[in-house]
Amino acid sequence: MRQDHLVTSKQLSRADVEAVLDRAAEIDADPGAVADRHAGSLLGLLFFEPSTRTKMSFEAAIKRLGGDTVDMGAVDASSVTKGESLADTVRVAAGYADALVLRHPRQGAATMAGEFVNVPLINAGDGAGHHPSQTLLDLYTIQENAGLDDLTIGIMGDLKYGRTVHSLSYALTNFEADQHFISPESLQLPREVVYDLHLEGATVREHEGYEAILPSLDVLYVTRIQRERFPDENEYQQVAGEYRIDADALEAAEDDLTVMHPLPRVDEIAPDVDDTDHAAYFEQAHNGVPVRMALLDMLLGDGDE
Amino acid sequence: MRQDHLVTSKQLSRADVEAVLDRAAEIDADPGAVADRHAGSLLGLLFFEPSTRTKMSFEAAIKRLGGDTVDMGAVDASSVTKGESLADTVRVAAGYADALVLRHPRQGAATMAGEFVNVPLINAGDGAGHHPSQTLLDLYTIQENAGLDDLTIGIMGDLKYGRTVHSLSYALTNFEADQHFISPESLQLPREVVYDLHLEGATVREHEGYEAILPSLDVLYVTRIQRERFPDENEYQQVAGEYRIDADALEAAEDDLTVMHPLPRVDEIAPDVDDTDHAAYFEQAHNGVPVRMALLDMLLGDGDE
Amino acid sequence: MRQDHLVTSKQLSRADVEAVLDRAAEIDADPGAVADRHAGSLLGLLFFEPSTRTKMSFEAAIKRLGGDTVDMGAVDASSVTKGESLADTVRVAAGYADALVLRHPRQGAATMAGEFVNVPLINAGDGAGHHPSQTLLDLYTIQENAGLDDLTIGIMGDLKYGRTVHSLSYALTNFEADQHFISPESLQLPREVVYDLHLEGATVREHEGYEAILPSLDVLYVTRIQRERFPDENEYQQVAGEYRIDADALEAAEDDLTVMHPLPRVDEIAPDVDDTDHAAYFEQAHNGVPVRMALLDMLLGDGDE
Repeated sequence: MRQDHLVTSKQLSRADVEAVLDRAAEIDADPGAVADRHAGSLLGLLFFEPSTRTKMSFEAAIKRLGGDTVDMGAVDASSVTKGESLADTVRVAAGYADALVLRHPRQGAATMAGEFVNVPLINAGDGAGHHPSQTLLDLYTIQENAGLDDLTIGIMGDLKYGRTVHSLSYALTNFEADQHFISPESLQLPREVVYDLHLEGATVREHEGYEAILPSLDVLYVTRIQRERFPDENEYQQVAGEYRIDADALEAAEDDLTVMHPLPRVDEIAPDVDDTDHAAYFEQAHNGVPVRMALLDMLLGDGDE
Repeated sequence: MRQDHLVTSKQLSRADVEAVLDRAAEIDADPGAVADRHAGSLLGLLFFEPSTRTKMSFEAAIKRLGGDTVDMGAVDASSVTKGESLADTVRVAAGYADALVLRHPRQGAATMAGEFVNVPLINAGDGAGHHPSQTLLDLYTIQENAGLDDLTIGIMGDLKYGRTVHSLSYALTNFEADQHFISPESLQLPREVVYDLHLEGATVREHEGYEAILPSLDVLYVTRIQRERFPDENEYQQVAGEYRIDADALEAAEDDLTVMHPLPRVDEIAPDVDDTDHAAYFEQAHNGVPVRMALLDMLLGDGDE
Repeated sequence: MRQDHLVTSKQLSRADVEAVLDRAAEIDADPGAVADRHAGSLLGLLFFEPSTRTKMSFEAAIKRLGGDTVDMGAVDASSVTKGESLADTVRVAAGYADALVLRHPRQGAATMAGEFVNVPLINAGDGAGHHPSQTLLDLYTIQENAGLDDLTIGIMGDLKYGRTVHSLSYALTNFEADQHFISPESLQLPREVVYDLHLEGATVREHEGYEAILPSLDVLYVTRIQRERFPDENEYQQVAGEYRIDADALEAAEDDLTVMHPLPRVDEIAPDVDDTDHAAYFEQAHNGVPVRMALLDMLLGDGDE
């Protein structure tokens, strides 16, 4: 595989992360300086699953760099319905674009696809696998709000299935963050993730409620608990209620606690949090643009102009 | 709400309308002069309902100004299927674009959405509510073909449910047009709309057939009568037949009568009208581009370049 | 109809084909020279049927020329579901764009549509009808790999329903190619196509297997045999197996045999062919970009800048 595919956040060293975050900060401070930098470049969008935020922010990112997109469109409107293999689809698309973004429901899809193309490929989510550009924008948001040094972070909600959470946790081991995982027992971090985090030297602490740990957190990262994980609606309602945050609950937190969420939220965070200084989740979504601009700028290099 | 959202045609004064129409005429006369005027600007397209004309003409408009789009895509391919609120979706999208266009099936959606975003938002239709850019292109087409002064207009078809018709009627009160409403009794203008028009000083005359009034009209604005409004197919066929226009029927009209239709038509206007000098409905659709260019140009201002 | 619609490959003389292929070769050699050539031009995409390759490569082509697209989107998300006629849809779209690309499931759709629009229209497939830009990229690929003079070509698979095959065969009569058609009897070339080819002076030879003719071929053009053509699954499996190509089978061919396929493939060509020098099908798909750039450049002319 090419060095310049971005498939998993595990492949990123601390120096790699810092390079992207520094470039994103530069771009954020002066977007006009790069407005024509990749004029003529085409980014191929291959989304085999619905997405709003990720797709729109990659689209905005390449266009803010002066480039444009070539979009496969919705899956049912494409030849994959005729039985074409993913390997064939990406090989064809690689001839239409200077870089590719792939979202696919199957874990490992991006790794496999990367072996068949000779343009940079960014994994924008492969099932329960990885979504490294999400991790980079999460890290950028943490850096802008709380700093990445001496960080104490709580990660709450569905920790079992959430690829966002796993990617972020791995990446945070680079920064020696103090990581607290808050979830019902049935949605705990998978044991192999805990094991991997330990291997990386991380301290992992698990909690069933947020009350005890909330006052010591710099960042609280909330994720959605999905109804479909529970056979029983009542059980879901009860569990979801225990991991819901509102302005009242945040009275117990430090004034400068940063609350994040990868969105979409349903009602894990009450609307009354939106107007507090804690809320950073919309800023977090918006950070997708400068962070993906930085990524694309680094992957496309100078050669395409 | 920001002053620069465009949610309803009711918010437009005569001077506002004239400013947009004058700018559209300027652009129409020399589109090359604005071809790069908004280079780098991104228009977010949030269409929660199908649309061909409106979406394509906004897309053409921003691109003819040198800008580009960021498109949420079809609704079922977006996170709204995960239960995200409209308020969250527009807040996120506002971080990706310099202005937003929203179409939504729920009346009042644009007003609500406008309260959450700090970029200009254009309502491109909210259920039975408003669709002000359609009204502006209708007014532009009337001005180009018949003039807006001393206008006698007939508005025919489904006057009960048609948001296009209501918006246009309100806007025409600014120009003291003589308005005639032609429909079956069951699809008459809602009483509250008639009342509002009277409050604005309009003279409203209602008719059940077009024959008597046709010879005195400058403009005949035809809308579609939808099959689903009638419980009985035979009743629909009979009613629809009485409000159908063909070249023969137009023999009774003035030579310079202008026939308009917001499209799509089914068979309210026979194809044999297309080749007469009366037909202005394709021109009307095409006017969506210069009118929306004028609107976007005014909303985006100079600051974005 | 305007001279500058491209509806069928039958309308292309040998000189027309050579003009497109020469221009495509020029563009392929120096794409930077045309990177801004059609800045400001908009290409309308009207796809009433799913397509990946064709749509993405037209999108890439206009953008590589500095232009942009206006996209009707997926069919179910458009006003065609409200019963609008194709004639109305294309007339409206012609006001939004400088040229149109139309794919439609109904044979003859492009011919009809062309009568209603005053911008160049390219037929990108009309049911079992024509798809001339596919033929041009096929010819370009043949020229680049085997040359169009003294060509011996085998065309294999579903020859009855494949519009790609019919278009290519007609076009090849301009170059006096030796054409061999290989298929099960039930999927033979329609008799009227054979008759037309004879009228054009072509020598047509039909085969039920590829073994005897393979060693004398310069090009083997493989198409997909569709499951749905066979009432019985076992019969399909047996027939499909006989027209499947793998690296072993190609041992009997000349070293410089070029294997082509319009894609998507299912398993007519085994993956082990992909890494041989015979495989030209991905290159063929990629050639869609320079060939469509050449086409668009010729249709848009100089006037649009």
